Amino acid sequence: MLQQLSAEELPKVEKEVIDFINTCTTHEELKKSMLYSIEAGGKRIRPLIVLATVRAFQKELTVPVYQTAGALEMIHTYSLIHDDLPAMDNDDLRRGKPTNHKIFGDALAILAGDGLLTGAFQLISETTLDSAENVLLIQLLAKAAGISGMVAGQAGDMAAEKHHVPLEDLKAIHRGKTGALLTYAFVAGGILANQTEYVIELLEKLGGHVGLAFQIRDDLLDVVSTTEELGKQVGQDEKSDKSTYPALLGIEGAKQALADELGQAETTIQQLMEVTEFQPEIFEELLALFTLEK
Amino acid sequence: MLQQLSAEELPKVEKEVIDFINTCTTHEELKKSMLYSIEAGGKRIRPLIVLATVRAFQKELTVPVYQTAGALEMIHTYSLIHDDLPAMDNDDLRRGKPTNHKIFGDALAILAGDGLLTGAFQLISETTLDSAENVLLIQLLAKAAGISGMVAGQAGDMAAEKHHVPLEDLKAIHRGKTGALLTYAFVAGGILANQTEYVIELLEKLGGHVGLAFQIRDDLLDVVSTTEELGKQVGQDEKSDKSTYPALLGIEGAKQALADELGQAETTIQQLMEVTEFQPEIFEELLALFTLEK
Repeated sequence: MLQQLSAEELPKVEKEVIDFINTCTTHEELKKSMLYSIEAGGKRIRPLIVLATVRAFQKELTVPVYQTAGALEMIHTYSLIHDDLPAMDNDDLRRGKPTNHKIFGDALAILAGDGLLTGAFQLISETTLDSAENVLLIQLLAKAAGISGMVAGQAGDMAAEKHHVPLEDLKAIHRGKTGALLTYAFVAGGILANQTEYVIELLEKLGGHVGLAFQIRDDLLDVVSTTEELGKQVGQDEKSDKSTYPALLGIEGAKQALADELGQAETTIQQLMEVTEFQPEIFEELLALFTLEK
Repeated sequence: MLQQLSAEELPKVEKEVIDFINTCTTHEELKKSMLYSIEAGGKRIRPLIVLATVRAFQKELTVPVYQTAGALEMIHTYSLIHDDLPAMDNDDLRRGKPTNHKIFGDALAILAGDGLLTGAFQLISETTLDSAENVLLIQLLAKAAGISGMVAGQAGDMAAEKHHVPLEDLKAIHRGKTGALLTYAFVAGGILANQTEYVIELLEKLGGHVGLAFQIRDDLLDVVSTTEELGKQVGQDEKSDKSTYPALLGIEGAKQALADELGQAETTIQQLMEVTEFQPEIFEELLALFTLEK
């Protein structure tokens, strides 16, 4: 099911984004720089969650769904470009390829990030959705990506690089840094599928657990993988003495924390089943993506 | 009239922005960094144009007007923070004070810019405006600030730093870099004052001329002012051998180009007077801000 979404539907999301960038960008190098990072691939987990959620509620995948999912991927991609900058994490490799600034220089990488971020709001505001629904999707996206969400999480993450922070602080950082956008993916899917407020709340809760699971898994992979397997440099966290789940809890403790989050996600799916009609298999398949084995 | 707007109404715009940042930001240093640049002052020309335009059409200045004007100022402020970065223009001084990254470091300056940009869309999406009007204001703001507007202009400006470009290219760059947001200020004012499409088109035209006038004046000031008068380093353009109006046309030629743009702005105001009721004095006062003497 997820495999089919990935193979057949994600390309439509990518097409919306690439067409939008090609149509709207009035500066050639800027366009190349943005497309370079968009086309670098990656797991597309955020747009996949949007599509999967809409589909789980047995609604049709329409152009506005692809556009919303695409806007979300644009925001995620901008955050990677800025995060990789020498002034930030100073990463040379991303998804197995040189990072944006290694190809286009720091200045254009900053602008490509700014362009993708701003473009995400343009793309999502140009959907044919009902205006009230459109404003809500924009508002929640800005909130998730911004100063109480991802940007705040990034700032917290940077500050935590030089010293170990308590587990609760680390969770708060990750709720912003990676959790907010992942949660938005579930919530946006629910809104696009016309679900009730209570269902949206449960989707938000589900997204919270999935978001933490994602980060714990990411931290663990940095310790247990090779650069080749991961497509980016491993051992970076330890090198920079960064606060991570494995650093705070040990590898076994982090594995347990991951299992706990996935368990709570399961429970939330059960709660969803009590209040609305949907296909739980899709969510089960999604959760499987966050196990360490996958 | 403009003086009264500046003194009594602009503080309300600032309050909306500062309250928003204080309420929403979940990371203390990030908050400080954003407030530092917002509170550094500046002429607030963009929000002033929004207020002046609404007032010219004799409409009330309401909270959504302040919020829209505030979102625009947030976008402008983010662009200054990113533009000043070592990877970009590498400026140490802005509005007479150290630039954001000189105080907070490059990483937090990047995030403060990202936060203000994202926050602008959050603030404007949280107004109590009618949803359709809200979506339109968001869409046009993203367009003006983004990959066919300001960000594209910045990319063009950077590329033009190392060699002189023809006048038409320079104009295109400036239409993006400074013109797009200034034009948005007039257009948003017109939308907030419920004007017809034709009036909005004329406001867009007016904004185009004012935008170019603004940039020519800015280029000229870099040549003829002292650092003390201007509150930022002068002579920067020449030092970097940047394409500017004075570099292309000479000082007298640039002064003439400025007069031409202001003349065409005057003509547009006359055209506006033929189709709608408004107080032209406010626009006249606005134009006076863009003369070299002011």
